[in-house]
Amino acid sequence: MKSGTLEMCLLWDFYGDILTDKQREFFDLYFNEDLSLAEISENSGITRQGVRDAIMRAETTLRDMEDKLGFVRRYGKIQTELVKISESAALIQSINQKQYRNPEIAAQIDNMLKILSDLTKE
Amino acid sequence: MKSGTLEMCLLWDFYGDILTDKQREFFDLYFNEDLSLAEISENSGITRQGVRDAIMRAETTLRDMEDKLGFVRRYGKIQTELVKISESAALIQSINQKQYRNPEIAAQIDNMLKILSDLTKE
Repeated sequence: MKSGTLEMCLLWDFYGDILTDKQREFFDLYFNEDLSLAEISENSGITRQGVRDAIMRAETTLRDMEDKLGFVRRYGKIQTELVKISESAALIQSINQKQYRNPEIAAQIDNMLKILSDLTKE
Repeated sequence: MKSGTLEMCLLWDFYGDILTDKQREFFDLYFNEDLSLAEISENSGITRQGVRDAIMRAETTLRDMEDKLGFVRRYGKIQTELVKISESAALIQSINQKQYRNPEIAAQIDNMLKILSDLTKE
């Protein structure tokens, strides 16, 4: 895996749709398919330098978007908080199962955990 | 309030930082401060048409960002789900207060509701 791939794939997931078609194509081949600049150059008929420039412009655009909008950071924070809520829900679930076996509490906890699971999957 | 202000203020909150300084200035005066095109034109020394064009370009950019990235839509969905979790937590809290008065359940619910309140405020 190329250095910086994890950061770039995260930025790609959030902001990839803002890139031009050409940037998207090269970026995808380079980071997601792990092709080399030379391989992309051969397949596309564009010089290695041209491919490199397009990918670097894409990287700059994605980083610039995150600097300005910060959705990766915000989303990460929400996910951290959702995990804490899930832990609290699991603790209540455990107490209810051991001590009370209250079906309404069990149903509400199940409902919460399902929603939380869906939200953290996205 | 001008028509479309609510939509634009929501888009502004999410994507405003992507606009140019001039677009931001005019957009803010027009939608947030509710000045007229003529007033902004007088204060800035730019023609009414120039102000109008800048605001329309800003609107187009913001709508385009949402079409491509969809963060307003995604965020709205998360908020809806967080409200459902809060309702479940409140129901458990009510059952616990009436029937069990279990301090650990109470503490975990308080913890959840605090996190949820912080997340829905942002």
